[in-house]
Amino acid sequence: MTLKSPIAVTMGDPTGIGPEIAVKVLASNDVPIIVYGSLKILEMTAKNLGLEFSSEKVVNTIDLSSDQLNEIKYSMPSKLSGKIAYSAIESAVDGCLNNNLSALVTGPISKVAFNLAGYKWPGHTELLAYLSNKQEPPKIRMLLLSDKFLIVLNSIHLSLKDAILQINVSNVLDTINIVNEWAAKNKIDIKNFWMAALNPHSGESGLLGSEEKNILEPAIKLAKLNNIPISGPWPADTLFMKMKASTNCFPPKDVIISLYHDQGLIPFKLDGLNNGVNLTAGLPFLRTSVDHGTAFDIAGKGIASATPLKNAILITNKLINSASTYDE
Amino acid sequence: MTLKSPIAVTMGDPTGIGPEIAVKVLASNDVPIIVYGSLKILEMTAKNLGLEFSSEKVVNTIDLSSDQLNEIKYSMPSKLSGKIAYSAIESAVDGCLNNNLSALVTGPISKVAFNLAGYKWPGHTELLAYLSNKQEPPKIRMLLLSDKFLIVLNSIHLSLKDAILQINVSNVLDTINIVNEWAAKNKIDIKNFWMAALNPHSGESGLLGSEEKNILEPAIKLAKLNNIPISGPWPADTLFMKMKASTNCFPPKDVIISLYHDQGLIPFKLDGLNNGVNLTAGLPFLRTSVDHGTAFDIAGKGIASATPLKNAILITNKLINSASTYDE
Repeated sequence: MTLKSPIAVTMGDPTGIGPEIAVKVLASNDVPIIVYGSLKILEMTAKNLGLEFSSEKVVNTIDLSSDQLNEIKYSMPSKLSGKIAYSAIESAVDGCLNNNLSALVTGPISKVAFNLAGYKWPGHTELLAYLSNKQEPPKIRMLLLSDKFLIVLNSIHLSLKDAILQINVSNVLDTINIVNEWAAKNKIDIKNFWMAALNPHSGESGLLGSEEKNILEPAIKLAKLNNIPISGPWPADTLFMKMKASTNCFPPKDVIISLYHDQGLIPFKLDGLNNGVNLTAGLPFLRTSVDHGTAFDIAGKGIASATPLKNAILITNKLINSASTYDE
Repeated sequence: MTLKSPIAVTMGDPTGIGPEIAVKVLASNDVPIIVYGSLKILEMTAKNLGLEFSSEKVVNTIDLSSDQLNEIKYSMPSKLSGKIAYSAIESAVDGCLNNNLSALVTGPISKVAFNLAGYKWPGHTELLAYLSNKQEPPKIRMLLLSDKFLIVLNSIHLSLKDAILQINVSNVLDTINIVNEWAAKNKIDIKNFWMAALNPHSGESGLLGSEEKNILEPAIKLAKLNNIPISGPWPADTLFMKMKASTNCFPPKDVIISLYHDQGLIPFKLDGLNNGVNLTAGLPFLRTSVDHGTAFDIAGKGIASATPLKNAILITNKLINSASTYDE
């Protein structure tokens, strides 16, 4: 087995808990990581918390004057804080694209700060797609990974009504293909693709909705022509139950194609947040994110838990190591 | 504590597994039950299975000739099988209305047989509402009860699109009131009503859907005027997670108002089917149903598991006993 490259961790918005959890993880983490962000802010944060700190494990992505440093106030997202958060992401993506990093774990950013700084991406993920390929940003999907589930979401941040109205054969096929290519690229062995139904009882032969017949079944047929081992649509209430009961390896060899945010996230979160991570499929590198925000209510108080970030790093590392066993 | 009246169990469709699981439970059950159905069919089923059988615990709801008995074939739902199933339900409801039964647990019926027999109710539940009050059938809702969850569904058998389009202040208020009255009537102590959101992140202030602002918040306000301790709407993915982690008594003192079939049933079923039951709120008596169908694929083979029916009876009994502690 070859030595792995470190995992990049972005600091997130400096007015939130991002720098705090980053230096906490730096002080205690066993997995090799490199934190991208403002060296001065990280250094200061570590000092305030009384934590050990080595600048060797930091890539400074922006130079700040003393005036600028003083401008940064906890819980007050600003144009400057948005720029700092952006610089970390931009540099970390560069590092990932140049292959000297094995994955990217992103800290929490502030939408408010991004707006103030003039960045118009609706979220982190869309920005990563853009930075990965500015001419033709890749199509991306959110994956949810734990030791019980691997779930891909057909849509994320849409109202439930829009999520339903926008399901079509083409984007369902995209979802299947994106996760299939993601798995192949990351040497993750998927045995079965399970399509969740949209409607109760999988639409009960059309009595309880037509999307299964008109959209999901045709998409499954087309995916099968592409040699993808897919079945369904399966009634969602028993599908998640069966997968949870039967899955016993990491990463799971079964992936569930889920059609809207809560269909995947309700079962995923049911056993707690610390066992799983969000991943983005479709990017040219492995990307994981923490499942919490900037937590402005506790920013700067020294009480933020670094456990979610630590777990995101551990699970990402586990995924990289499990993948590597295929070719060595 | 007074001695409880027995629980009524309906036999279900005689061409399915209903009679088999009924006689299996009769032969082994510790909770006092009375089975409603055809005595001859139940007797014959017990004989075929080599099980002890006492006609004392059966209310014969229909007299069958030998010719009629021969007409009944496993896995072949018919006009006659529909009539037999109906007779059991009708008599059992009579028994419940006359207060000499403490609850009704219904066995699986066949929609095909009901159609052939000319019964036009879309399901078991609607028939029970009709039989409870033929002039003015009560409004009813499905409840899901386990030792982790008490969930009421705003709608059941609708496509997801229709379930969303049909949510309004009036039916959400009905849902809240029906479960509130059900709890009071059955002496079940509910401390908190938690309204689940429809949209991801509870609509994110309207960015991801307007139902929270336009429907759920007004319904919550009105329910509060009625002194119901309700809060929300809460993002559904974390609401179920928090309830599961915090609930530690039976029946739970928290009820979740859920807006569509899978929103409630995905988390409810995730830990397996044997820990929970479906109840119907709004009827003048306590009603539970098994969460499986007629299982025509194994009918008559002697291999049907009576565990779901047994658990439905046990949980119903536990609910009755926990309720009685309030006033004795």
